[in-house]
Amino acid sequence: MTTPLAALIARDYSTPALVIDMDRVEANIARIQAVCDAAGVANRPHIKTHKSPVIAKMQIAGGAKGITCQKLGEAEIMADAGIDDILISYNLIGDEKMARLAALQARAKVTVAADNAVVIAGLTRAAAISGLPLNVVIECDTGRKRAGVETPAEAIELARLIRDSDGLVFAGFMLYPTETGWPAAQAFFDEALAGVRALGLEPTIVSTGGTPNLKNVGSLKGATEHRFGTSIYNDRMQVAAGVASWDDCALNVYSTVVSRAGPDRGILDAGSKTLTSDTGGLDGYGLILEHPEAKIEKFAEEHGFLDLTRSNTRPGVGDVVRIVPNHVCVVVNMFDEVVMVRGNEVIGTLPVAARGRLK
Amino acid sequence: MTTPLAALIARDYSTPALVIDMDRVEANIARIQAVCDAAGVANRPHIKTHKSPVIAKMQIAGGAKGITCQKLGEAEIMADAGIDDILISYNLIGDEKMARLAALQARAKVTVAADNAVVIAGLTRAAAISGLPLNVVIECDTGRKRAGVETPAEAIELARLIRDSDGLVFAGFMLYPTETGWPAAQAFFDEALAGVRALGLEPTIVSTGGTPNLKNVGSLKGATEHRFGTSIYNDRMQVAAGVASWDDCALNVYSTVVSRAGPDRGILDAGSKTLTSDTGGLDGYGLILEHPEAKIEKFAEEHGFLDLTRSNTRPGVGDVVRIVPNHVCVVVNMFDEVVMVRGNEVIGTLPVAARGRLK
Repeated sequence: MTTPLAALIARDYSTPALVIDMDRVEANIARIQAVCDAAGVANRPHIKTHKSPVIAKMQIAGGAKGITCQKLGEAEIMADAGIDDILISYNLIGDEKMARLAALQARAKVTVAADNAVVIAGLTRAAAISGLPLNVVIECDTGRKRAGVETPAEAIELARLIRDSDGLVFAGFMLYPTETGWPAAQAFFDEALAGVRALGLEPTIVSTGGTPNLKNVGSLKGATEHRFGTSIYNDRMQVAAGVASWDDCALNVYSTVVSRAGPDRGILDAGSKTLTSDTGGLDGYGLILEHPEAKIEKFAEEHGFLDLTRSNTRPGVGDVVRIVPNHVCVVVNMFDEVVMVRGNEVIGTLPVAARGRLK
Repeated sequence: MTTPLAALIARDYSTPALVIDMDRVEANIARIQAVCDAAGVANRPHIKTHKSPVIAKMQIAGGAKGITCQKLGEAEIMADAGIDDILISYNLIGDEKMARLAALQARAKVTVAADNAVVIAGLTRAAAISGLPLNVVIECDTGRKRAGVETPAEAIELARLIRDSDGLVFAGFMLYPTETGWPAAQAFFDEALAGVRALGLEPTIVSTGGTPNLKNVGSLKGATEHRFGTSIYNDRMQVAAGVASWDDCALNVYSTVVSRAGPDRGILDAGSKTLTSDTGGLDGYGLILEHPEAKIEKFAEEHGFLDLTRSNTRPGVGDVVRIVPNHVCVVVNMFDEVVMVRGNEVIGTLPVAARGRLK
């Protein structure tokens, strides 16, 4: 079964196509802003999910105070579009990036994260080139073992280093607690806060993050803002995490069934170069709305292997199906544009302007 | 430790960067052509790995008779560059694609694969639009359970359908045997061949595929050509499969260590949006040449998690390392350009012209 809208999109945009429902996008923006408002923290959405200045501006128009970018190249795209309050939540390293960071400072209010002295030393060069003070938040690890200093003592030491570095301004702390890690994050933050106050410093930004942390937003006493990424579109992971319903999933991959060589199996024209191999810890690689019992069991690069054993309804060759991907952030990054729909109408396309901005 | 070349690339191109060693690329082209020549089959490289018309033309200059593309959009890029013998090894479906296929026919000699009657019916429309005969090979499954008819009887029936379809020309068979599946492929092919001969048809193309099948090339009696993809660059999977050495791996991801928050761990600026979550069945996500005992154990989108427990040498923050990825085809597709080096010199960049051509 192919819906009339899917037939239209296949006809005009071919498949595989990324399709976003703008009613749901707008509802997601409003919902997240309301969560932040209720929690008394600012909303600083992470654009890594949508990579679109148009969507970012919708988030700002909806009440967001600024945006978060993971990579400098993403921030450049956003600044080019006129967005002027950007947190780069990532350790930036190297002369090439420092020159670009300095240029970015001239165009937007930029805050960058750091978790070590090498990064901080580099950032002084950017500030020296731009001649503008550069705001630095200290990334703190509270259980994820990704980036971030592991102890409050290290955070305090880096705050001192920032204070004593030409051109740098201590701006505060960035945390990304696990869903169960907020009490530990509170203890970490309280100790770090006391330490920096003893140095005569006061954070202006205390930033928490993560869509799976929806229910925890505001529970860190002292937090000033939260970074939501995936919530703009949501996905199978967020539904599994209990922070979104299927109706909150605003993005579908439209894919054509191109082969049904056996009765219990089929092939989609969406493989690992479309849906990616990110499982997000889930079984299968996406929910097919038309055939929820069908399983996308594995991929070749351009083939999605459909296991139809448990599916009473089975698509025919040529059917166009709609898929909620496991992890929407990586899927968006595979496409140059998304098709925007409202109800059953296509209303246009949107470039994924910061797609592939890895640097 | 950062090599002088890595320092140069980080300075001029930033990281993460894709770097190809042109001496090795040329050696890989020559090696594969020699394998095909020795086996008495034509070489029809699959451009899905490099997605570059420049590299494709090097392969043709080296002796390849034409190229293979997985997607129509890839074939369009190649035809735009003047490549004129293209096999699209994929079921193409839908009016949008048929119009594009017809346009492509006017620019290049095109052969397309099909494994079912719906696809064949569609292809007649492309031929009707172009007014040019369209060559069709029948995709046969011999164990992979991907696309491809499962029995010789179905293959023969489709050959009859192609023969009886306006504008279509039966061109032969396309197979992609598993490494151990060649005897079964031979039996399948022999039966299908006898059947189509009984219909008065004779295949002009009998195409086998796969870099892991390097040692099997030519062992299908009646094969006319082989499709090599990954062999242009090779990767950790091909080394594990025993069909390439580390010295045959022509592509590295250059990545900067951006965090060392704990003594036994580190973070690379290459995550799932760079190296992808394809494991290729291997442990870890790539070999770090400078620290072969280090393990890239998991990813966030822009973070590669380094487990240094078993590594005696450990990189410092700011070090640029070279990674042989698990599966090079999907990694190339994340980048807009590759940096070309020869020895210790950068000689230029090459656009990944067909990157993201999913349609």
